[in-house]
Formats: sequence, C-alpha cells, structure tokens
Amino acid sequence: MQLPYKRYNDKAEYSYCFGPFPTFELIENRPQEAIEVLYHSQTSDAIRNKLQSICQRQGIPCEQNDKVIQRIRDKENCLVVGVFKKHESVLAMDRPHVVLVNPSDMGNLGTIIRTAVGFGLPDLAIIRPGAAICHPKTVRASMGSLFRLNFQYFDSFAEYKSAYGEGRNMYPFMLKGSVGLDQLQRNKEELYSLVFGNEATGLPDEFLQEGQSVRIRHTDNIDSLNLSLAAGIAIYEFTKA
Amino acid sequence: MQLPYKRYNDKAEYSYCFGPFPTFELIENRPQEAIEVLYHSQTSDAIRNKLQSICQRQGIPCEQNDKVIQRIRDKENCLVVGVFKKHESVLAMDRPHVVLVNPSDMGNLGTIIRTAVGFGLPDLAIIRPGAAICHPKTVRASMGSLFRLNFQYFDSFAEYKSAYGEGRNMYPFMLKGSVGLDQLQRNKEELYSLVFGNEATGLPDEFLQEGQSVRIRHTDNIDSLNLSLAAGIAIYEFTKA
Repeated sequence: MQLPYKRYNDKAEYSYCFGPFPTFELIENRPQEAIEVLYHSQTSDAIRNKLQSICQRQGIPCEQNDKVIQRIRDKENCLVVGVFKKHESVLAMDRPHVVLVNPSDMGNLGTIIRTAVGFGLPDLAIIRPGAAICHPKTVRASMGSLFRLNFQYFDSFAEYKSAYGEGRNMYPFMLKGSVGLDQLQRNKEELYSLVFGNEATGLPDEFLQEGQSVRIRHTDNIDSLNLSLAAGIAIYEFTKA
Repeated sequence: MQLPYKRYNDKAEYSYCFGPFPTFELIENRPQEAIEVLYHSQTSDAIRNKLQSICQRQGIPCEQNDKVIQRIRDKENCLVVGVFKKHESVLAMDRPHVVLVNPSDMGNLGTIIRTAVGFGLPDLAIIRPGAAICHPKTVRASMGSLFRLNFQYFDSFAEYKSAYGEGRNMYPFMLKGSVGLDQLQRNKEELYSLVFGNEATGLPDEFLQEGQSVRIRHTDNIDSLNLSLAAGIAIYEFTKA
C-alpha cells in the first residue's frame, strides 16, 4: 500500500488499532475493513506467524515496518498495528440497541462498546456530536470489540427514531427517571433501546416523554454514576437471565 | 504553610485534588486531612467565596497562589487545588466491604470508589501491590468521592481476613466462579465482602476456595469485562432493593 502513514488524524479515511489483540479482532471479524497489518521486528515469532497466517487467508497485506510503527504508535511498547477503513454499518432492525446521545469521552465510549458486545447487545447508535468511534483510543478502551459491533451515527434522536423506532420501546436513563431500574417490570420479549446522555449533562428533560424513563438509584453522596458504569449496569440488568 | 509544593510525588506525605468539586468534597468531608486550599486569581467570585467560607468554618488555610497552582496542576484549566495529607482509616467491622487485590489502574480504582460510595458501600480494602489511592488521578476519577470513603491497605488477603473475616461471607469474582451473579441466592442480612482481582490477571485460582465464587456471565465475544464495570455491576446487584 502507498498510504502516507502519519499519526492518527480525524480527517483521514483510515485509522489504526494498536497491539496484537485488537488487530486479531480486526482481521478476524472485519477483514473487509482491514487495509494492512504492520508488525515490528521485535514482534514474537508466535504472534508474527499467527498474523501472517490469518492475513494470508483473508487476503490482507501484512508486512514488517519498524519505521512506520515508530512514527504512528501512541505507546512505546506497541509492536503491532492494524490499519483499517473508518466504516459505519446499519443497525439490526430486530435487535435491541444502545443509543448514546452526545458521548464525549473516548474511554467511556470504548468501555461501553466492550460491555455491550460482552452482554450480547452489539448494535450502537450515536447521536452527533459524539466522540470518534474509530479513534485508536476508543478502539483500545473497547479491547478491539469495536470490530464486533454494528454502529451508526445520526444527526438527531428524531432521525434515529424515524429509522428504527417503530415497534420499539425506548428507555431513557436519567437522574429524574420515573422508575428505578431495580423496580422496572417489562416484557422480556420486547424490542427496546437503552438511551444515555452526555457525561456532564445527561439527557435533556424532553427525554422524560420518550418511552419509559429509568433511574439507577444511588445515594446522595455522589452527583451521578460514571456514564460507562450507568450504561454497563443497565445493559447487565436488561440482558440477564 | 511552608510546604515545598512540587508536582505530585509518591513519596511525599501529602497529595492534591484538582478542581473545585473534589476540593469541596475534601474540606466538607475530611477537614482533618486538609492542609490548605489554593485558588487561582481567575477563580470565579462564587467559588472563591464558598471556598473561603467553608475553610474559615473548618479552620483550613485558604489563599490565592497562581504560581504554585501553575506549577503543580496537571491540566491547564485547573484553578483550585486542595492539598491533603495522605491518610488511611480502619474499615467498619459491621459493614460490607469491597476488596481489590492488586488493582493497577488509577482510573479504574477511582471509578470503583465513585460507584461504591454511590451505592452505599464506602469501605474499601486494597491488597498490595496496588495503585496509589491518594494520587490526583485516582481522586479525579473518583470525582472527589475518595473523601467519603474508608480505605485500608493490607499486605495479603490473609492479613485482611484475619482482621475482618470473622462472620463475613466472601464473594470472589472470577471468570471461573461457580455461580452466576444473576443466579446467586443469598441472605440479604448477611455481612459480606466483594473481592476482585487485577485488571490483567484476575484473581488466582486459590480464591475458588474463599467463600462463594461468582462469575458475571457474558458472551465469548470478549475476554472479560473491564474491572470497574465488573465491580460496579456486582456492587449494584448486591445493594439493590
């Protein structure tokens, strides 16, 4: 490939994942988005062999290139880089979704992806403005589970609803939510979306009118839960047996 | 005070919290550990007045000092610094505990503190080696809730057990745990400790013998949950109505 590899850039059409584990996730699960795999001369034989064998099977270029890795990596000890196309997908119409309204922190976003994929909810809508999902920091926090996720951006919640809202129950999570998560009665067969607001501001009050608003009860000793914790607890509770 | 204020140092006997919110948490909840409050000349009148009034009531020195703040702060926009003694406390004998065995990430540690305080479990044991709980990064991730927490370090889990284990049921959280969190039957009146391992390695197998081991079920699409998520979900489930 003749890409002018530089450090990550929001405007470029490609991004990077750093480290062998996320790179394996990329080439196994999203080979069509993988552009190239680069490894450093210090990579262990075991990892290099595994990378080469999967890349060969999937038709993905794979080469040693210490110079480029040293230029683009974000941590000294990173020896493997996956280069991938920034992509987007459509969400599954018949599965539950997680909806993040204006998430601003890439660490939280990645952690939520890891939890959602872990609990079997791999469809994520992001309402703009929102943190960059293909940024290496998000990919790292997701531990590469980004490559097992369907995600789609929308300009507004209304746009999301008109695309996917039909026959779907909305659960906005808010400090003012009208029912406690641990008191919620619902039909386990329903189609639903779990909706969360921005880290600093939460969801605006108009979301109290969107379906069944929910609060996660906590003491007054904290202002609120961390966003990734609130989302994780909600996803756990909705998906548990 | 004549402290030679430098950037945070692991060996110093004092540490810092950055920003007004954690500083209010410090001077309201742990005035005995507060050494001094510093504010920048750009601090708003409202915040300066509130700081001065609480500090006066609590007998804590409070002064404007742009130079020191610019030298020690970790983010450009930080205008308020609380200086506090590194401290430790004894845990409540008659309350549930969270036990972290060798936690290594200060962000996770702070997030777990925020969640534990939020759900009414403000007693934390840390088994060494463990991340520095008084480090400004931990305090920031805790959103200042560190100052509402009892915490105590131990050299081993055995030492913790001999101090607090009597009449207390242990729940080690492990990928190999013998019962799913969502299937667990227990007496809500019991005294218990929730025990979690290191981010990368989890708890060693010998913890399978410590009380009732628990797993949080997830799909094979991820290796494990993030530590702060696993702890947060467990704390939520144990403390909910």
